[in-house]
Amino acid sequence: MAPPAAIEVQGDSDTTGIILPDPLLAPIPSNDILGRRKKADKAQWGTAAPCDTANFRLKNYEGKPKAKRWDHILTEEAKSRKGNSLKNAAKYLSKPGLITLGGGIPSSEHFPFEEISVKVPTIGHFSEEETRKTGVTLTAGKHDLAEGKSIYDISTAFNYGQGAGSAQLLRWVTEHTELVHDLQYEDWACTLNVGSTSGFEAALRMFTRPGDMILSEVYTFSAAVDCATPLGIRVVGIPMDGEGPLPSAMDDILTNWDVNTRGARKPRLLYTVPTGQNPTGCTQSFARRKALYKVCQKHDIYVIEDEPYYFLQMQPYTGPNSPDVPPPKTHQDFLKSLVPSYLSIDTDGRVMRLDSFSKVVSPGSRIGWVTASRQVVAAYAKASDLSTQNPSGISQLVFFKLLDEHWGHGGYLDWLVHIRMSYTRRRDTILAACERHLPHDIVSWIPPMAGMFHWLKVDYTKHPDYPAESVESIQERIFMGNIDHGVLLMPGSYFYANVEEKHEDLFFRATYAAAPAEKIEEAIRRFGESIRKEFRL
Amino acid sequence: MAPPAAIEVQGDSDTTGIILPDPLLAPIPSNDILGRRKKADKAQWGTAAPCDTANFRLKNYEGKPKAKRWDHILTEEAKSRKGNSLKNAAKYLSKPGLITLGGGIPSSEHFPFEEISVKVPTIGHFSEEETRKTGVTLTAGKHDLAEGKSIYDISTAFNYGQGAGSAQLLRWVTEHTELVHDLQYEDWACTLNVGSTSGFEAALRMFTRPGDMILSEVYTFSAAVDCATPLGIRVVGIPMDGEGPLPSAMDDILTNWDVNTRGARKPRLLYTVPTGQNPTGCTQSFARRKALYKVCQKHDIYVIEDEPYYFLQMQPYTGPNSPDVPPPKTHQDFLKSLVPSYLSIDTDGRVMRLDSFSKVVSPGSRIGWVTASRQVVAAYAKASDLSTQNPSGISQLVFFKLLDEHWGHGGYLDWLVHIRMSYTRRRDTILAACERHLPHDIVSWIPPMAGMFHWLKVDYTKHPDYPAESVESIQERIFMGNIDHGVLLMPGSYFYANVEEKHEDLFFRATYAAAPAEKIEEAIRRFGESIRKEFRL
Repeated sequence: MAPPAAIEVQGDSDTTGIILPDPLLAPIPSNDILGRRKKADKAQWGTAAPCDTANFRLKNYEGKPKAKRWDHILTEEAKSRKGNSLKNAAKYLSKPGLITLGGGIPSSEHFPFEEISVKVPTIGHFSEEETRKTGVTLTAGKHDLAEGKSIYDISTAFNYGQGAGSAQLLRWVTEHTELVHDLQYEDWACTLNVGSTSGFEAALRMFTRPGDMILSEVYTFSAAVDCATPLGIRVVGIPMDGEGPLPSAMDDILTNWDVNTRGARKPRLLYTVPTGQNPTGCTQSFARRKALYKVCQKHDIYVIEDEPYYFLQMQPYTGPNSPDVPPPKTHQDFLKSLVPSYLSIDTDGRVMRLDSFSKVVSPGSRIGWVTASRQVVAAYAKASDLSTQNPSGISQLVFFKLLDEHWGHGGYLDWLVHIRMSYTRRRDTILAACERHLPHDIVSWIPPMAGMFHWLKVDYTKHPDYPAESVESIQERIFMGNIDHGVLLMPGSYFYANVEEKHEDLFFRATYAAAPAEKIEEAIRRFGESIRKEFRL
Repeated sequence: MAPPAAIEVQGDSDTTGIILPDPLLAPIPSNDILGRRKKADKAQWGTAAPCDTANFRLKNYEGKPKAKRWDHILTEEAKSRKGNSLKNAAKYLSKPGLITLGGGIPSSEHFPFEEISVKVPTIGHFSEEETRKTGVTLTAGKHDLAEGKSIYDISTAFNYGQGAGSAQLLRWVTEHTELVHDLQYEDWACTLNVGSTSGFEAALRMFTRPGDMILSEVYTFSAAVDCATPLGIRVVGIPMDGEGPLPSAMDDILTNWDVNTRGARKPRLLYTVPTGQNPTGCTQSFARRKALYKVCQKHDIYVIEDEPYYFLQMQPYTGPNSPDVPPPKTHQDFLKSLVPSYLSIDTDGRVMRLDSFSKVVSPGSRIGWVTASRQVVAAYAKASDLSTQNPSGISQLVFFKLLDEHWGHGGYLDWLVHIRMSYTRRRDTILAACERHLPHDIVSWIPPMAGMFHWLKVDYTKHPDYPAESVESIQERIFMGNIDHGVLLMPGSYFYANVEEKHEDLFFRATYAAAPAEKIEEAIRRFGESIRKEFRL
C-alpha cells in the first residue's frame, strides 16, 4: 500500500495537530473518524476521570436490539460488585469552586518525569530500517493538558486512572472497534484491560464457578487450560476440522450432556480463538462462525472470543511457485478481506471479545480491551477497579501518541497491512521449507490463513514400531529426536483441552513468528531429518 | 540534603555507564550495591527470560531460620497452580545451536518503536522547575542489549515477559528491599506485580475462601473491603488507638472467636497498613508492630503488610510556631528514621509485604512488588503468569533507566528524602490551617507522622441536636454542609472495616497530598465555617 497523502482534519477542538492520513478510507463511514468525533467533555481527560464509552461511538444504533441480560450466568462475585465505594463522592466534584481534600492521589509535582518521547515510523515507512532513517519522535510533556498542547500528558497518564482505562485511549479503541466490526445490537461497550490473559481469567471468575466445565477447541491455548485448572474448571474439547470446531459435535455434546457422567452441570461458556487459532492455526470461516453461534443460541452458551491474531490474517496462499497476491489496495479492501468476527454476528450480546495489541504492536505494553454488552463491560470494569486497575498509564500515553495523534485510524490500518504482508512472507517461507524438506507421506498440513502457527500432522501409523509403541511414546521420541537434531517444536499433546479425552492424532506446532527466515528454513530441514531418522526412511 | 558527588563504579560488566552517586551511603553495607552485584547470567536479560531473585541478594543469610510452610493456609487454588505448562520445553533452549520454533512470541522487528526517552531530574535537583532546567534525558534503543549498550532495551521490554517481572527491574527491587529492611529469615524472595490493589486481591485468592473473615484496622482502606466483599470475605475491625490496632483487642477477638456467632471460621489473615494508614493517618510504633506480630504468632495469623506510604514518613511535627527539623544528614540517618517494617520483625516468613511505587514515583506505572517467603512468592508469580502477566514492559524499562542506570540506590534515597520534605511541608500546612480555622472543642486530631491523610475527629456529642439525631445523620449533615461551603472531605463511615460493627466516633478524612498549599488553607477555613454553622457556634 503506497503511503497516502496526509490531510488535516478539523473537528475536535480538544485535539490539536491530529492528522487523518488516508483518503483511501473515503468509501467507508470511518473516513473521517477524527473529524466526526462528538464535542467531548473536557473533564474526562483529567486525572482518574471517569468516562463513558458510549460517547465515543459514531454510528447510529437506533432500531437495533438491546443485549440480553446475563444475570443467570454471571457469578455472585460478578453481580455483587459495587466498584470503589469512594467514587460515590465524585458526583460533587463538578460543583464550581469546590476544593476537594477527598481523593488520596499524589500531586504530579512528585512525579520525576518532565517529558517522555518515542521514535516511531511515519505512515508507509514501517520497516526497522526506514524507522531509523525517517521515523519521527513523538513527545508528551508533563503538563500538556493544562497548557493546551494535547489532551493527554504525563501529569494525568502517570497518575491513578480508572479500571476502564483513560478516556483518551478508550475513545480510540472504541472507534477502532466500530471501524472493524459491524455491531448488531445497541448497547455494546468497550473497556481496557491489562491484556487478554488477564481478560480470560476475569471472564472465568465472572462466568464460572468451581466444578464447571467450559467448551473449547479440542486442541486449545494451553495457558487457558492452565488458568482454568486451579479455579476448578475443566475444559470439554470440541472436535475440529480445518474450519474449526464442528457445530454438530458441539450440539451433540450439549444435547447429550449427562451431569453424572461429566461430573459437572451443563456448560455455559465457549472459549474460542476463531482466527489463526493457537495451536492449530485454524481460521473459522464466516459460515462456521454463524453455525457455531446458532448452537450457542440454542443452548444459551456465552462466548469468549479471544482474537489476538485477528489482524494476522494473511494473503491467500498460492503455493510454492506461484506469484504472490498483491496487498489490498484500499483500507476498505483490507477490512473486507477479514473474516467477520463473532462480534459482527452477535445479536444477543452473548459475546465477550478480547482484543489485544500484543501481536500487532507490542506485548510488553500490557494493553488489551474487551468489547461486550454494557452489563458485562460494567461488571468487568468494576472488577478491574479493585484488582488490576487500569493498564499502565505510561503504556497508554505512548499508545495514544502513536495511534491517535500520529497515525490515526487510517495509518494504523496501513501498519496492520504492513504486518500482514510480513507474516505472509514468513508463512510462505515455512510452507516452502516444509514442501522442500518434509516427507509428505508422513507429515501433512493445511496452509494457515492467519496467526503465528503452523500445525504439522504426523502419520504415526507409518512408524515402524506402531502399534507396539503408543502415540504418546512416538510423540516423545520425535520431540527428543528433534532436540538432538537442533530444533524445538511443541508437541501437540501440550495443547489438549482435556488430557482425559481420547486423542488419536499426533501433531507438532511450529511458529514462524519469531525466528528469521533463514533459521526457519534450517529448522524445518532439521525437523525433516529428525522425522526421517525416527521413521527409518 | 546536598547533591552528592557522583563517582564511577565498576563491577557489573553487563551494565555500562552506571553511576553510584553517593558516598553518604558509606557507613552502611549498601554503599556499593552496584559494585557488589554478582556476575550475572546474561541469558536472564533476554526476552521473556526467567530469573531467580535469590541471585540478586547481596547479604549473607546463613544461620537464619527458614520460613515456615503455609500449606495449611494457602487455598487449593494457590496450591494447585503449576504455572504455564509450555515452560517445560524451556529447559532445552540452552542447547547450543538449537533453533526454536516453539515459543509463540512476536519478533521485535514488528514493534513500531525505535527509541524511548524520558527527561528526569538529576540527583539533588528534584523539583519540577529544576528538572525543566537541569534534567537529563535517558534513552533506550530498540537493540541496546544486542549492541552491548545496556542490559535492557525495547526489543526485550516491549515483548512478552515473566509474571515475576524482568530480571533487570526485579534485581533493583530486591536490592532496594535488602537495603531498607533487615530480613530475619533465609528464604525470602521478591516478585513484581501490577500494583498493590492487584496484590491484595491476589492475596485474598491465595489465603481465603468464600465465607472467611479477615482482620484489619477498625477503619480501613475502603478499596480493600470493596475487593473482599464480592469474594464473600468479611472484615473484622480491630479497635485502634493512636498507635494502631490494639494487640490485646486483637488477641481477645481471636481467643474468644465463636464460629456460630461470627458465621465464619477463625481468621487466618491480618491486613494492615502499618505506616500512615488510610484513612486514619496512624503509624504503628515499632513496639506496637512487635506486639501485634506476637499475637499473629500465637494465633497463626498470616500478615499482609500493605505499605504504600512507608516512604511518606515525615519529619517530626514541632507545632505551628517552632522551627522545622532539618532533613536527615545521611542515607543512614534517613533509613534509621523509618519505623522498622513487619518484614524486619518476621522470623517465620508469615508476612507478605506489598510495596508500591505509586506514592513515591508514579501510580500510572502500575508497578509494585511483593516480598515474602519463596513458597508464597512462587505461588504468587505462578498466578501472575496466568492472569496479569508482568507489569508493563514500557513502565519497567522507564523505571530501570531511571532507578538503576541513572539514580542508582543512593540517588533514589535522595529522591525519597525530597518527597519526605515535600510531604512534611504539606502536612505542616494542613496542621497550621487546622490550628487556625477549626473550633478546637469540636474538632480534634493527632498530627500524622506519615502518609497522605489527616484524620479529624468531630465531637458529635456537642451537636445541639444530639442525641435526638444519630451520629450517621450528623455526619451526613456535616458532609453536605461542607459541600455547600465548597469543600469535600471524606466521611469516616466510608472506611468502616465492617458496617455491621458498632461505631461510636465521627471522623472526616482530609488529604494534604493533592491540592496546592493555598487551596489546603482555604479548604480547611471553609470546613471550619461549615462546622461552626452546623454546630451553631
